[in-house]
Amino acid sequence: MSRPGEARIAIIGGAGDLGFGLAVRLAKAYNVTIGSRDQARAADAAAKASTAARVRVEGKTNGEAASACDIAILAVPDLPSPDLLSGLAQGLKDKLVISPIVPMLFRDGIFSISLPGESAAERVAKALPGSRVAGAFHTVPASRLAQLGEELAYDVLVTADSREVYDQTARVVSSVGKLRPFYAGPLTASRLVEAITPALLNVSKLNKLRSPSIRLV
Amino acid sequence: MSRPGEARIAIIGGAGDLGFGLAVRLAKAYNVTIGSRDQARAADAAAKASTAARVRVEGKTNGEAASACDIAILAVPDLPSPDLLSGLAQGLKDKLVISPIVPMLFRDGIFSISLPGESAAERVAKALPGSRVAGAFHTVPASRLAQLGEELAYDVLVTADSREVYDQTARVVSSVGKLRPFYAGPLTASRLVEAITPALLNVSKLNKLRSPSIRLV
Repeated sequence: MSRPGEARIAIIGGAGDLGFGLAVRLAKAYNVTIGSRDQARAADAAAKASTAARVRVEGKTNGEAASACDIAILAVPDLPSPDLLSGLAQGLKDKLVISPIVPMLFRDGIFSISLPGESAAERVAKALPGSRVAGAFHTVPASRLAQLGEELAYDVLVTADSREVYDQTARVVSSVGKLRPFYAGPLTASRLVEAITPALLNVSKLNKLRSPSIRLV
Repeated sequence: MSRPGEARIAIIGGAGDLGFGLAVRLAKAYNVTIGSRDQARAADAAAKASTAARVRVEGKTNGEAASACDIAILAVPDLPSPDLLSGLAQGLKDKLVISPIVPMLFRDGIFSISLPGESAAERVAKALPGSRVAGAFHTVPASRLAQLGEELAYDVLVTADSREVYDQTARVVSSVGKLRPFYAGPLTASRLVEAITPALLNVSKLNKLRSPSIRLV
């Protein structure tokens, strides 16, 4: 994999499990900044990620990280608040913004989608009208990302409203372990792609599988 | 795989692509009848399936096939009409009914779910209140089922409202090629499982993959 030059990736919410794992993996190919609401928490996560990746990872507030990046990944645990997104909209203007967000409910022992008939990626695109938004990474288990010994031979479905935005996102996906990106259609198709994650979580729970992901065969 | 004795499987809508493929595969382990609205069409498909499977497959009307079976698979191309289901309800009473149905739309070049916030399996269960309903086989490509040379090393997510109905369905799934069943939760979780099929069809179309299915890894 060629090193994508000096492109700067901001991981918004990068102190959480998914964000930390992505930071550690992407730091091998990109200039990575972990963003957090809290500067001290960002600095702490960045120090840990630097040690794990053996490459320097920076820590900033979400707003500073967004302003100073070329590509942002919204590694937040659930639908971001309208306030968070509107605060980032100017800093993320004209940039690639990748949503791995899966809007989920857990009720009666079963995971489901909390936003039927819509998707997190579409919500994000509406809140960031000046950005190029894609959906990706939904089915990559956070716990495996953070384990650098895991090869991550998984397939990742990517949604984007143009082939160009897909291609840019696919390069980011391809830089992580052995992840293989596939174009899964426009942002509206995120409704289908985001639903795979709660299905996998249910399968994991009911069949005692550890952090399953998928491959196309 | 042990032969599940003399259990009789009716494939409702068995003259279509998915039904024909399932009939050919299941005929090795079960006593299979292809059902169709039209007796002549059922007989024709049964003759072809008998030749392909090298085992006798019968052909009957859907109603006759339903009455004479232990297990029914609703291999219809889209949501069955309320009339079809209410006509079968008595014949299918107390029986296992497996729904591989995926309610889909194709618009602007993209497949999507036509029944957001519900699922075909839930609809079927409502229309057949005396039956034990499960969802399965959604992601098994019909074209590969009918090719007996394909080993079908795919994973199949099964939904059912009890572990007992899951177990019965899992035995049917396991008898087809190398399909591996996994319990994916109650019938409401079919909303998630059914959505995987249009996602795969979009990926197939946009990435020029032939009939992809999935494996958990």
